[in-house]
Amino acid sequence: MSNAEELVVKLSAKGLTCATAESCTGGGVGSAITAVAGSSAVFKGGVISYSNDVKAYVLGVSRDLLARVGAVSGEVAGQMAAGARRVIGADIAVSLTGIAGPGGGSAEKPVGLVWFGVATAARIATERRVFTGDRAAVRSAAVAHAIDLLSAAADGLEGKG
Amino acid sequence: MSNAEELVVKLSAKGLTCATAESCTGGGVGSAITAVAGSSAVFKGGVISYSNDVKAYVLGVSRDLLARVGAVSGEVAGQMAAGARRVIGADIAVSLTGIAGPGGGSAEKPVGLVWFGVATAARIATERRVFTGDRAAVRSAAVAHAIDLLSAAADGLEGKG
Repeated sequence: MSNAEELVVKLSAKGLTCATAESCTGGGVGSAITAVAGSSAVFKGGVISYSNDVKAYVLGVSRDLLARVGAVSGEVAGQMAAGARRVIGADIAVSLTGIAGPGGGSAEKPVGLVWFGVATAARIATERRVFTGDRAAVRSAAVAHAIDLLSAAADGLEGKG
Repeated sequence: MSNAEELVVKLSAKGLTCATAESCTGGGVGSAITAVAGSSAVFKGGVISYSNDVKAYVLGVSRDLLARVGAVSGEVAGQMAAGARRVIGADIAVSLTGIAGPGGGSAEKPVGLVWFGVATAARIATERRVFTGDRAAVRSAAVAHAIDLLSAAADGLEGKG
């Protein structure tokens, strides 16, 4: 079973739903989850917030925060996850915001840097990763890690079933 | 050049932006567009409206319409595209709602049926297609066609550049 298949099985068994807020992966996490037949029982949807306007207007990320710390930051990842969970209406939401490359990197925020957020009713967690490789490799690794984070979050929640 | 690369080049040259509203492809169109380096100049984002709640709450699709004609319909595809264009704030939005299979098909709405919508400031158009093959083949064909529809819509708009 793929990680996405395991996630769908796990969420289905617990009666839990999930949502996504994607920036650098542009919909790749949602695409991977919905590649699994039967995923509609657990995946409610997501927001592809590629521009800062969408992060602010649709997900409710603070414009002040975006201006102050930048879109690729733990604070923004946390607000994206919380926003997706609220807007989409799911038990767990994962978010990603990063620099897939080849352009856009800096010493402080290199190409391959991805911030993740995970939001449940109880808490919001964030995590920083730096992936290596080209744009496709960074995006692929980020998708896989986002699915693992949803899975780990599901492990920590009691089922509703 | 892939179709997505051609789309990004075309939109960039015209100074136009695009957005997506995806159901059966779950983010695959956004993922394909953002696989292209430099796509952030033209792709603002999208909504993955896998559940009817997200179609209604986030995209503004009429709940009465969803109940009356079902999510997989031209009317809903049109409202999804119009909603994405408005919520995301883009010049052109494409939408998809269909039955990727293997389950969920009927005589009237077979597996492989996908309704597309395209919204610009001037008009909303819808199109019905039935793709053959398994879930992955249907989704892949639907992603490719959505990108072609965005490209054709861009051809019909005057540039802002």
